[in-house]
Amino acid sequence: MTQHSTTAPRRGRPGNDRGDVITAAVSLFNQHGYEATTVGMIAEQLGVSKSAIYHHVASKEELLASALDRALSSLEGMLETANSSGRSPLERLEYVLRGTVQVLIDDLESVTLLLRLRGNTDLERQALQRRRNFNVAVAELVTEADDTGALRADIDPSVATRYVFGMVNSITEWYRPGGALSAEQIGDQIVNLVFNGLRPRSH
Amino acid sequence: MTQHSTTAPRRGRPGNDRGDVITAAVSLFNQHGYEATTVGMIAEQLGVSKSAIYHHVASKEELLASALDRALSSLEGMLETANSSGRSPLERLEYVLRGTVQVLIDDLESVTLLLRLRGNTDLERQALQRRRNFNVAVAELVTEADDTGALRADIDPSVATRYVFGMVNSITEWYRPGGALSAEQIGDQIVNLVFNGLRPRSH
Repeated sequence: MTQHSTTAPRRGRPGNDRGDVITAAVSLFNQHGYEATTVGMIAEQLGVSKSAIYHHVASKEELLASALDRALSSLEGMLETANSSGRSPLERLEYVLRGTVQVLIDDLESVTLLLRLRGNTDLERQALQRRRNFNVAVAELVTEADDTGALRADIDPSVATRYVFGMVNSITEWYRPGGALSAEQIGDQIVNLVFNGLRPRSH
Repeated sequence: MTQHSTTAPRRGRPGNDRGDVITAAVSLFNQHGYEATTVGMIAEQLGVSKSAIYHHVASKEELLASALDRALSSLEGMLETANSSGRSPLERLEYVLRGTVQVLIDDLESVTLLLRLRGNTDLERQALQRRRNFNVAVAELVTEADDTGALRADIDPSVATRYVFGMVNSITEWYRPGGALSAEQIGDQIVNLVFNGLRPRSH
Protein backbone atom coordinates (compact mmCIF):
# COMPACT_ATOMS: atom_id res chain seq x y z
CA MET A 1 0.00 0.00 0.00
CA THR A 2 2.77 2.46 0.87
CA GLN A 3 5.34 1.30 -1.67
CA HIS A 4 4.89 2.93 -5.05
CA SER A 5 7.06 2.62 -8.09
CA THR A 6 8.75 5.97 -8.74
CA THR A 7 8.20 5.51 -12.47
CA ALA A 8 4.42 5.11 -12.09
CA PRO A 9 3.15 7.78 -9.67
CA ARG A 10 -0.37 7.40 -8.30
CA ARG A 11 -3.15 9.91 -8.76
CA GLY A 12 -2.38 13.01 -6.65
CA ARG A 13 1.01 13.83 -5.16
CA PRO A 14 3.67 11.19 -5.59
CA GLY A 15 4.14 9.05 -2.50
CA ASN A 16 0.67 9.70 -1.07
CA ASP A 17 -2.59 8.30 -2.32
CA ARG A 18 -6.02 8.67 -0.76
CA GLY A 19 -5.49 5.54 1.34
CA ASP A 20 -2.30 6.97 2.88
CA VAL A 21 -4.15 10.17 3.79
CA ILE A 22 -6.93 8.17 5.49
CA THR A 23 -4.39 6.02 7.35
CA ALA A 24 -2.51 9.09 8.66
CA ALA A 25 -5.77 10.80 9.64
CA VAL A 26 -7.12 7.77 11.55
CA SER A 27 -3.90 7.43 13.50
CA LEU A 28 -4.12 11.09 14.55
CA PHE A 29 -7.86 10.80 15.37
CA ASN A 30 -7.06 7.90 17.73
CA GLN A 31 -4.15 9.75 19.29
CA HIS A 32 -5.67 13.21 19.80
CA GLY A 33 -9.40 12.71 19.26
CA TYR A 34 -11.33 13.62 16.10
CA GLU A 35 -12.25 17.13 17.26
CA ALA A 36 -8.68 18.06 18.26
CA THR A 37 -7.16 16.81 14.98
CA THR A 38 -6.79 19.42 12.21
CA VAL A 39 -6.18 18.95 8.48
CA GLY A 40 -2.92 20.85 9.10
CA MET A 41 -1.78 18.10 11.53
CA ILE A 42 -2.58 15.42 8.94
CA ALA A 43 -0.60 17.34 6.28
CA GLU A 44 2.35 17.72 8.67
CA GLN A 45 2.28 14.00 9.50
CA LEU A 46 2.56 13.18 5.77
CA GLY A 47 5.06 15.99 5.07
CA VAL A 48 2.79 17.65 2.50
CA SER A 49 0.79 20.88 2.26
CA LYS A 50 -2.84 21.22 3.36
CA SER A 51 -3.85 21.74 -0.29
CA ALA A 52 -2.31 18.34 -1.09
CA ILE A 53 -4.74 16.82 1.43
CA TYR A 54 -7.68 18.69 -0.10
CA HIS A 55 -6.62 17.24 -3.46
CA HIS A 56 -7.75 13.85 -2.13
CA VAL A 57 -10.67 14.70 0.18
CA ALA A 58 -13.14 17.55 0.61
CA SER A 59 -13.13 17.65 4.42
CA LYS A 60 -11.93 16.12 7.68
CA GLU A 61 -15.35 14.50 8.02
CA GLU A 62 -14.85 12.70 4.69
CA LEU A 63 -11.68 11.15 6.15
CA LEU A 64 -13.62 9.94 9.19
CA ALA A 65 -16.40 8.58 6.95
CA SER A 66 -13.90 6.75 4.72
CA ALA A 67 -12.05 5.17 7.63
CA LEU A 68 -15.23 3.96 9.30
CA ASP A 69 -16.54 2.66 5.97
CA ARG A 70 -13.27 0.79 5.39
CA ALA A 71 -13.48 -0.99 8.76
CA LEU A 72 -17.21 -1.74 8.45
CA SER A 73 -16.97 -2.96 4.84
CA SER A 74 -14.17 -5.37 5.80
CA LEU A 75 -16.26 -6.80 8.65
CA GLU A 76 -19.44 -7.01 6.54
CA GLY A 77 -17.58 -8.60 3.60
CA MET A 78 -16.01 -11.18 5.88
CA LEU A 79 -19.40 -12.05 7.40
CA GLU A 80 -20.94 -12.40 3.92
CA THR A 81 -18.12 -14.74 2.86
CA ALA A 82 -18.77 -16.84 5.97
CA ASN A 83 -22.52 -17.01 5.40
CA SER A 84 -22.26 -17.93 1.70
CA SER A 85 -19.79 -20.74 2.35
CA GLY A 86 -22.27 -23.59 2.79
CA ARG A 87 -20.56 -24.56 6.06
CA SER A 88 -22.33 -25.49 9.28
CA PRO A 89 -23.34 -22.67 11.67
CA LEU A 90 -20.56 -23.67 14.10
CA GLU A 91 -17.93 -23.59 11.33
CA ARG A 92 -19.24 -20.23 10.15
CA LEU A 93 -19.07 -18.88 13.70
CA GLU A 94 -15.47 -20.02 13.99
CA TYR A 95 -14.75 -18.38 10.61
CA VAL A 96 -16.29 -15.10 11.83
CA LEU A 97 -14.26 -15.18 15.05
CA ARG A 98 -11.00 -15.67 13.13
CA GLY A 99 -12.11 -13.20 10.45
CA THR A 100 -12.90 -10.47 13.00
CA VAL A 101 -9.44 -10.92 14.55
CA GLN A 102 -7.91 -10.67 11.06
CA VAL A 103 -9.78 -7.46 10.15
CA LEU A 104 -8.96 -5.96 13.53
CA ILE A 105 -5.24 -6.62 13.07
CA ASP A 106 -5.12 -5.69 9.37
CA ASP A 107 -6.77 -2.32 10.02
CA LEU A 108 -6.15 -1.83 13.73
CA GLU A 109 -6.47 1.97 13.72
CA SER A 110 -9.77 2.12 11.80
CA VAL A 111 -11.36 -0.61 13.92
CA THR A 112 -10.12 1.10 17.10
CA LEU A 113 -11.72 4.34 15.88
CA LEU A 114 -14.98 2.47 15.16
CA LEU A 115 -15.02 0.82 18.60
CA ARG A 116 -14.47 4.16 20.37
CA LEU A 117 -17.30 6.03 18.59
CA ARG A 118 -19.74 7.70 20.94
CA GLY A 119 -22.40 8.71 18.37
CA ASN A 120 -21.90 12.49 18.59
CA THR A 121 -22.86 13.24 14.95
CA ASP A 122 -25.15 11.79 12.25
CA LEU A 123 -22.11 10.26 10.59
CA GLU A 124 -21.07 8.53 13.83
CA ARG A 125 -24.60 7.35 14.50
CA GLN A 126 -24.84 5.83 11.00
CA ALA A 127 -21.56 3.98 11.55
CA LEU A 128 -22.77 2.75 14.94
CA GLN A 129 -25.98 1.52 13.28
CA ARG A 130 -23.94 -0.52 10.76
CA ARG A 131 -21.87 -1.89 13.65
CA ARG A 132 -25.07 -2.87 15.49
CA ASN A 133 -26.39 -4.60 12.33
CA PHE A 134 -23.14 -6.58 12.16
CA ASN A 135 -23.47 -7.54 15.84
CA VAL A 136 -27.09 -8.63 15.31
CA ALA A 137 -26.08 -10.82 12.34
CA VAL A 138 -23.34 -12.43 14.43
CA ALA A 139 -25.76 -13.02 17.32
CA GLU A 140 -28.11 -14.73 14.82
CA LEU A 141 -25.24 -16.97 13.74
CA VAL A 142 -24.57 -17.92 17.38
CA THR A 143 -28.28 -18.69 17.80
CA GLU A 144 -28.22 -20.85 14.66
CA ALA A 145 -25.21 -22.77 15.99
CA ASP A 146 -27.03 -23.15 19.30
CA ASP A 147 -30.16 -24.46 17.52
CA THR A 148 -28.14 -27.26 15.91
CA GLY A 149 -27.00 -28.36 19.40
CA ALA A 150 -23.41 -27.29 18.73
CA LEU A 151 -23.31 -25.05 21.82
CA ARG A 152 -24.01 -25.70 25.50
CA ALA A 153 -27.66 -25.22 26.36
CA ASP A 154 -27.10 -23.21 29.55
CA ILE A 155 -25.53 -20.13 27.93
CA ASP A 156 -27.82 -17.66 26.22
CA PRO A 157 -26.63 -17.00 22.61
CA SER A 158 -27.05 -13.21 22.78
CA VAL A 159 -25.17 -13.06 26.09
CA ALA A 160 -22.41 -15.28 24.71
CA THR A 161 -22.07 -13.07 21.64
CA ARG A 162 -21.65 -9.96 23.77
CA TYR A 163 -18.91 -11.45 25.97
CA VAL A 164 -17.06 -13.24 23.16
CA PHE A 165 -16.86 -10.16 20.94
CA GLY A 166 -15.99 -8.04 23.98
CA MET A 167 -12.98 -10.33 24.33
CA VAL A 168 -12.12 -10.13 20.61
CA ASN A 169 -12.46 -6.33 20.52
CA SER A 170 -10.23 -5.96 23.59
CA ILE A 171 -7.33 -7.04 21.36
CA THR A 172 -7.22 -3.39 20.20
CA GLU A 173 -6.16 -2.48 23.77
CA TRP A 174 -2.85 -4.36 23.68
CA TYR A 175 -2.05 -5.48 20.11
CA ARG A 176 0.73 -3.48 18.45
CA PRO A 177 1.79 -4.01 14.79
CA GLY A 178 4.93 -6.10 14.52
CA GLY A 179 4.17 -7.87 17.83
CA ALA A 180 5.15 -11.48 18.50
CA LEU A 181 1.73 -12.96 17.66
CA SER A 182 0.22 -13.26 14.18
CA ALA A 183 -3.49 -12.82 13.46
CA GLU A 184 -3.67 -16.61 12.89
CA GLN A 185 -2.15 -17.37 16.30
CA ILE A 186 -4.47 -14.93 18.08
CA GLY A 187 -7.41 -16.44 16.16
CA ASP A 188 -6.38 -19.94 17.32
CA GLN A 189 -6.15 -18.80 20.96
CA ILE A 190 -9.52 -17.04 20.88
CA VAL A 191 -11.30 -19.99 19.22
CA ASN A 192 -9.76 -22.43 21.68
CA LEU A 193 -10.70 -20.34 24.72
CA VAL A 194 -14.21 -19.49 23.50
CA PHE A 195 -15.21 -23.03 22.56
CA ASN A 196 -13.35 -25.07 25.17
CA GLY A 197 -12.97 -22.78 28.20
CA LEU A 198 -10.21 -22.98 30.80
CA ARG A 199 -11.31 -26.10 32.67
CA PRO A 200 -9.83 -29.46 31.62
CA ARG A 201 -12.27 -31.58 29.63
CA SER A 202 -11.53 -34.84 31.47
CA HIS A 203 -11.01 -34.03 35.14
CA MET B 1 -24.30 8.34 49.49
CA THR B 2 -26.46 11.06 47.96
CA GLN B 3 -29.23 11.11 50.56
CA HIS B 4 -28.41 13.31 53.53
CA SER B 5 -30.62 14.22 56.45
CA THR B 6 -31.38 17.93 56.26
CA THR B 7 -30.96 18.17 60.02
CA ALA B 8 -27.38 16.79 59.93
CA PRO B 9 -25.51 18.46 57.05
CA ARG B 10 -22.19 16.95 55.97
CA ARG B 11 -18.90 18.79 55.99
CA GLY B 12 -18.96 21.39 53.21
CA ARG B 13 -22.08 22.55 51.41
CA PRO B 14 -25.25 20.70 52.29
CA GLY B 15 -26.19 18.07 49.73
CA ASN B 16 -22.68 17.56 48.34
CA ASP B 17 -19.76 15.80 49.96
CA ARG B 18 -16.34 15.12 48.46
CA GLY B 19 -17.54 11.79 47.05
CA ASP B 20 -20.39 13.47 45.17
CA VAL B 21 -17.95 15.96 43.63
CA ILE B 22 -15.66 13.12 42.48
CA THR B 23 -18.63 11.19 41.05
CA ALA B 24 -19.86 14.21 39.08
CA ALA B 25 -16.33 14.97 37.84
CA VAL B 26 -15.68 11.41 36.64
CA SER B 27 -18.94 11.31 34.74
CA LEU B 28 -18.00 14.55 32.93
CA PHE B 29 -14.42 13.32 32.29
CA ASN B 30 -15.84 10.22 30.58
CA GLN B 31 -18.35 12.25 28.60
CA HIS B 32 -16.16 15.14 27.40
CA GLY B 33 -12.59 14.02 28.14
CA TYR B 34 -10.45 15.17 31.07
CA GLU B 35 -8.86 18.10 29.21
CA ALA B 36 -12.18 19.49 27.95
CA THR B 37 -13.87 19.31 31.37
CA THR B 38 -13.63 22.46 33.52
CA VAL B 39 -14.25 22.94 37.23
CA GLY B 40 -17.05 25.29 36.15
CA MET B 41 -18.77 22.39 34.35
CA ILE B 42 -18.51 20.22 37.48
CA ALA B 43 -20.00 23.01 39.60
CA GLU B 44 -22.84 23.46 37.11
CA GLN B 45 -23.56 19.72 37.09
CA LEU B 46 -23.93 19.79 40.89
CA GLY B 47 -25.78 23.12 40.92
CA VAL B 48 -23.18 24.80 43.14
CA SER B 49 -20.56 27.54 42.73
CA LYS B 50 -16.96 26.90 41.70
CA SER B 51 -15.79 27.94 45.16
CA ALA B 52 -17.98 25.18 46.62
CA ILE B 53 -15.96 22.69 44.55
CA TYR B 54 -12.68 24.21 45.73
CA HIS B 55 -13.94 23.76 49.30
CA HIS B 56 -13.57 20.00 48.73
CA VAL B 57 -10.57 19.73 46.37
CA ALA B 58 -7.59 21.86 45.42
CA SER B 59 -7.65 21.15 41.67
CA LYS B 60 -9.20 19.24 38.79
CA GLU B 61 -6.18 16.91 38.88
CA GLU B 62 -6.97 16.01 42.50
CA LEU B 63 -10.42 14.86 41.31
CA LEU B 64 -8.82 12.65 38.66
CA ALA B 65 -6.34 11.27 41.18
CA SER B 66 -9.11 10.52 43.71
CA ALA B 67 -11.32 8.76 41.14
CA LEU B 68 -8.47 6.59 39.85
CA ASP B 69 -7.38 5.79 43.42
CA ARG B 70 -10.96 4.82 44.30
CA ALA B 71 -11.18 2.34 41.39
CA LEU B 72 -7.67 0.93 41.94
CA SER B 73 -8.09 0.59 45.73
CA SER B 74 -11.33 -1.34 45.23
CA LEU B 75 -9.63 -3.75 42.80
CA GLU B 76 -6.53 -4.15 44.99
CA GLY B 77 -8.60 -4.64 48.16
CA MET B 78 -10.73 -7.28 46.44
CA LEU B 79 -7.61 -9.13 45.22
CA GLU B 80 -6.11 -9.04 48.73
CA THR B 81 -9.31 -10.47 50.19
CA ALA B 82 -9.19 -13.27 47.61
CA ASN B 83 -5.53 -14.07 48.31
CA SER B 84 -5.90 -14.10 52.10
CA SER B 85 -8.90 -16.42 52.01
CA GLY B 86 -7.06 -19.75 52.26
CA ARG B 87 -9.00 -21.02 49.25
CA SER B 88 -7.53 -22.97 46.32
CA PRO B 89 -6.01 -21.00 43.42
CA LEU B 90 -8.99 -21.90 41.19
CA GLU B 91 -11.49 -20.71 43.82
CA ARG B 92 -9.49 -17.50 44.29
CA LEU B 93 -9.46 -16.94 40.52
CA GLU B 94 -13.21 -17.36 40.40
CA TYR B 95 -13.51 -14.92 43.34
CA VAL B 96 -11.36 -12.36 41.49
CA LEU B 97 -13.43 -12.71 38.31
CA ARG B 98 -16.69 -12.11 40.21
CA GLY B 99 -15.02 -9.40 42.32
CA THR B 100 -13.77 -7.51 39.27
CA VAL B 101 -17.27 -7.57 37.77
CA GLN B 102 -18.66 -6.27 41.08
CA VAL B 103 -16.14 -3.38 41.34
CA LEU B 104 -16.73 -2.51 37.69
CA ILE B 105 -20.48 -2.29 38.20
CA ASP B 106 -20.34 -0.57 41.62
CA ASP B 107 -18.04 2.17 40.30
CA LEU B 108 -18.63 1.96 36.55
CA GLU B 109 -17.55 5.53 35.76
CA SER B 110 -14.24 5.41 37.67
CA VAL B 111 -13.28 2.01 36.22
CA THR B 112 -14.22 3.23 32.72
CA LEU B 113 -11.97 6.27 33.27
CA LEU B 114 -9.14 3.97 34.43
CA LEU B 115 -9.50 1.66 31.43
CA ARG B 116 -9.42 4.58 28.98
CA LEU B 117 -6.23 6.17 30.38
CA ARG B 118 -3.54 6.77 27.78
CA GLY B 119 -0.68 7.75 30.15
CA ASN B 120 -0.41 11.40 29.11
CA THR B 121 0.77 12.69 32.53
CA ASP B 122 2.78 11.43 35.52
CA LEU B 123 -0.46 10.94 37.41
CA GLU B 124 -1.92 8.82 34.59
CA ARG B 125 1.30 6.82 34.27
CA GLN B 126 1.29 6.07 38.02
CA ALA B 127 -2.32 4.85 37.81
CA LEU B 128 -1.45 2.70 34.77
CA GLN B 129 1.47 1.22 36.73
CA ARG B 130 -0.87 0.24 39.58
CA ARG B 131 -3.25 -1.26 37.01
CA ARG B 132 -0.36 -3.25 35.49
CA ASN B 133 0.64 -4.49 38.98
CA PHE B 134 -2.94 -5.69 39.50
CA ASN B 135 -2.88 -7.46 36.12
CA VAL B 136 0.46 -9.13 36.95
CA ALA B 137 -0.91 -10.37 40.30
CA VAL B 138 -3.98 -11.80 38.54
CA ALA B 139 -1.78 -13.48 35.90
CA GLU B 140 0.22 -15.06 38.76
CA LEU B 141 -3.02 -16.38 40.21
CA VAL B 142 -3.96 -17.93 36.86
CA THR B 143 -0.47 -19.51 36.69
CA GLU B 144 -0.92 -20.87 40.22
CA ALA B 145 -4.28 -22.39 39.27
CA ASP B 146 -2.64 -23.84 36.16
CA ASP B 147 0.19 -25.35 38.25
CA THR B 148 -2.35 -27.27 40.36
CA GLY B 149 -3.74 -28.83 37.16
CA ALA B 150 -7.03 -26.96 37.50
CA LEU B 151 -6.74 -25.44 34.00
CA ARG B 152 -6.28 -26.98 30.57
CA ALA B 153 -2.62 -27.46 29.70
CA ASP B 154 -2.83 -26.11 26.15
CA ILE B 155 -3.71 -22.50 27.05
CA ASP B 156 -0.90 -20.24 28.24
CA PRO B 157 -1.86 -18.61 31.59
CA SER B 158 -0.67 -15.11 30.62
CA VAL B 159 -2.55 -15.29 27.31
CA ALA B 160 -5.67 -16.55 29.08
CA THR B 161 -5.48 -13.69 31.60
CA ARG B 162 -5.31 -11.09 28.85
CA TYR B 163 -8.35 -12.44 26.96
CA VAL B 164 -10.46 -13.18 30.03
CA PHE B 165 -9.99 -9.73 31.55
CA GLY B 166 -10.47 -8.16 28.12
CA MET B 167 -13.90 -9.81 28.18
CA VAL B 168 -14.61 -8.65 31.75
CA ASN B 169 -13.50 -5.07 31.04
CA SER B 170 -15.67 -4.92 27.90
CA ILE B 171 -18.69 -4.89 30.24
CA THR B 172 -18.03 -1.13 30.59
CA GLU B 173 -18.96 -0.81 26.90
CA TRP B 174 -22.57 -1.90 27.32
CA TYR B 175 -23.52 -2.06 31.00
CA ARG B 176 -25.80 0.78 32.15
CA PRO B 177 -26.86 1.26 35.79
CA GLY B 178 -30.35 -0.03 36.41
CA GLY B 179 -30.06 -2.60 33.61
CA ALA B 180 -31.76 -5.98 33.69
CA LEU B 181 -28.70 -7.91 34.90
CA SER B 182 -27.20 -7.75 38.41
CA ALA B 183 -23.46 -7.94 39.10
CA GLU B 184 -24.04 -11.47 40.48
CA GLN B 185 -25.76 -12.62 37.28
CA ILE B 186 -23.02 -11.16 35.08
CA GLY B 187 -20.41 -12.78 37.33
CA ASP B 188 -22.15 -16.16 36.93
CA GLN B 189 -22.25 -15.81 33.13
CA ILE B 190 -18.57 -14.79 32.91
CA VAL B 191 -17.39 -17.61 35.20
CA ASN B 192 -19.48 -20.16 33.28
CA LEU B 193 -18.18 -19.00 29.89
CA VAL B 194 -14.54 -18.65 30.97
CA PHE B 195 -14.26 -22.03 32.67
CA ASN B 196 -16.58 -24.15 30.50
CA GLY B 197 -16.54 -22.55 27.05
CA LEU B 198 -19.34 -22.72 24.50
CA ARG B 199 -18.94 -26.31 23.34
CA PRO B 200 -21.06 -28.99 25.06
CA ARG B 201 -19.05 -31.11 27.51
CA SER B 202 -20.48 -34.44 26.38
CA HIS B 203 -20.92 -34.37 22.62
